[in-house]
Amino acid sequence: MRVVVALGGNALTKKRGKGTYEELVKNINKTSRNLSKIIKKYNLIIVSGSGPQVGALLLQNELSKNKVPAMPLDVLDAELEGELGYLIGQSLINELRKNKINKSVVTILTQVLVDKNDRAFKNPTKFIGTFYTEKQARKLSKKFMIKKDSNRGYRRVVPSPNPLKIIEHKAIRNLVRKNVVIAAGGGGIPVYEENKKLQGVEAVVDKDLASFVLARDIKAKQLFNLTGIDKVYLESGKKNQKGLKTVNLKEIKGYYKQGHFPLGSMGPKVLAAIKFLESGGEKVIITKPEMLEKAIKGKAGTVITR
Amino acid sequence: MRVVVALGGNALTKKRGKGTYEELVKNINKTSRNLSKIIKKYNLIIVSGSGPQVGALLLQNELSKNKVPAMPLDVLDAELEGELGYLIGQSLINELRKNKINKSVVTILTQVLVDKNDRAFKNPTKFIGTFYTEKQARKLSKKFMIKKDSNRGYRRVVPSPNPLKIIEHKAIRNLVRKNVVIAAGGGGIPVYEENKKLQGVEAVVDKDLASFVLARDIKAKQLFNLTGIDKVYLESGKKNQKGLKTVNLKEIKGYYKQGHFPLGSMGPKVLAAIKFLESGGEKVIITKPEMLEKAIKGKAGTVITR
Repeated sequence: MRVVVALGGNALTKKRGKGTYEELVKNINKTSRNLSKIIKKYNLIIVSGSGPQVGALLLQNELSKNKVPAMPLDVLDAELEGELGYLIGQSLINELRKNKINKSVVTILTQVLVDKNDRAFKNPTKFIGTFYTEKQARKLSKKFMIKKDSNRGYRRVVPSPNPLKIIEHKAIRNLVRKNVVIAAGGGGIPVYEENKKLQGVEAVVDKDLASFVLARDIKAKQLFNLTGIDKVYLESGKKNQKGLKTVNLKEIKGYYKQGHFPLGSMGPKVLAAIKFLESGGEKVIITKPEMLEKAIKGKAGTVITR
Repeated sequence: MRVVVALGGNALTKKRGKGTYEELVKNINKTSRNLSKIIKKYNLIIVSGSGPQVGALLLQNELSKNKVPAMPLDVLDAELEGELGYLIGQSLINELRKNKINKSVVTILTQVLVDKNDRAFKNPTKFIGTFYTEKQARKLSKKFMIKKDSNRGYRRVVPSPNPLKIIEHKAIRNLVRKNVVIAAGGGGIPVYEENKKLQGVEAVVDKDLASFVLARDIKAKQLFNLTGIDKVYLESGKKNQKGLKTVNLKEIKGYYKQGHFPLGSMGPKVLAAIKFLESGGEKVIITKPEMLEKAIKGKAGTVITR
């Protein structure tokens, strides 16, 4: 059974981590151990978020632009796919070998079609990279667009257009029969179509929405969204917060419309779940990586069905 | 028929080019136009060199390491594969669409097995990145290993271990039936095996040798090596230089042993040709991208047969 697994930032780095190589490897290895437990049972396609990595690449480009030609953000998205695909892929290969599971792991560089006129280009909302103090933010805002990220500080924002189609979906679908496939890393590379030509665009695609589009395009049955929270909560963070165990499409749509799920954290995950189930998907699980096995048995996490 | 095409630096950037985005796109588009002419006839697997790109990534990492955690060279190789795979892949897709050729293009992130004890690690020889004056080189040599690159100036050197096996060769072989496949960009990511675990290593694999190993591992029939020179020359650069048109394995081995082909330019291309033919390959063409069509008809370039 084909299942898309979306890995949140905490599968890559610690909360507020610096994104060093050692930190990335350690966190990715932990995630691989959790994934290897279910890898015999499913044909997995793994999508990762960008963590702090795309912001790191952008900052590197800007800090050294007088000596090294800077690349546009779509090219950095491609670099990021290479980086994360390599680190996740190698870690998974080693975990599979350790457990004597005879499967290969392949990373496919993925372009994601978006609309050139998506309103995201006029109103960038995707936070990327490191946090700044108010003072730093004031200074940097002359160069970049900077916005306040809830109470956590100031961060750069870039456009996050709505993903419409995975350009490489046929190859991914073909490969997943015999391989664990890593695709659309960091949300994939946004491209638009003009006169039948593909053209990259400077933006970052949300990995939750990219996971839905990929799952739909390759006709996956289920979508597992692994994040830093054990389950989806109503009235999240409040005294009367209530964890959702099993919920159907109609119910979760109701909660979504009531505004229970904040943008930039649970919002896009729930939206991706709704869209996936409405497009023919059978089941969505939202939980922590270490609870996935239990969640599959219905004993942890949030399970959303049609 | 499966054919591996190796693209030299000039397929990516101008000679002594700066490696800007615009320059890359322009040169890659030109290469795509030349490749599209033969793409109906063959199942192509495209390997590109790293051009100045891996040096650029290394320099970016070092210039910004106080603000952004630096990544080891194997991770930069992976970023490079993403970057080049994206740019070449998108350009080829657009060229195929323009010519109404119904083929997809897919980039596979590729790891290349090397020997941990390869003597290259003790004696780095692979020139990467930009050229420096003698004065700059003296200063930089406190931080990096710098060597003189013929008469062209001073450059950084990194280890270039011998490639032994393409980790992802089965997936590549599977995909090439229906897709143009881009693989082992920049020579691929060097990894070694220890206790059955893969481990990345800080080095850059020569793309000519990587092309041979890939061609052998996927049982390609032919290898086209596209470079900045129209054909292979004996006594190259001298008054009595003699271009080779058609030559067989025994002859080219003789010339190779006589030292006709300099390291770092024609040497590895001829060596890759010899190894490929010795491992079962049928034919190698070495020429400029714009002469490939003619060379296939035996009317240009150097054609090496068993």
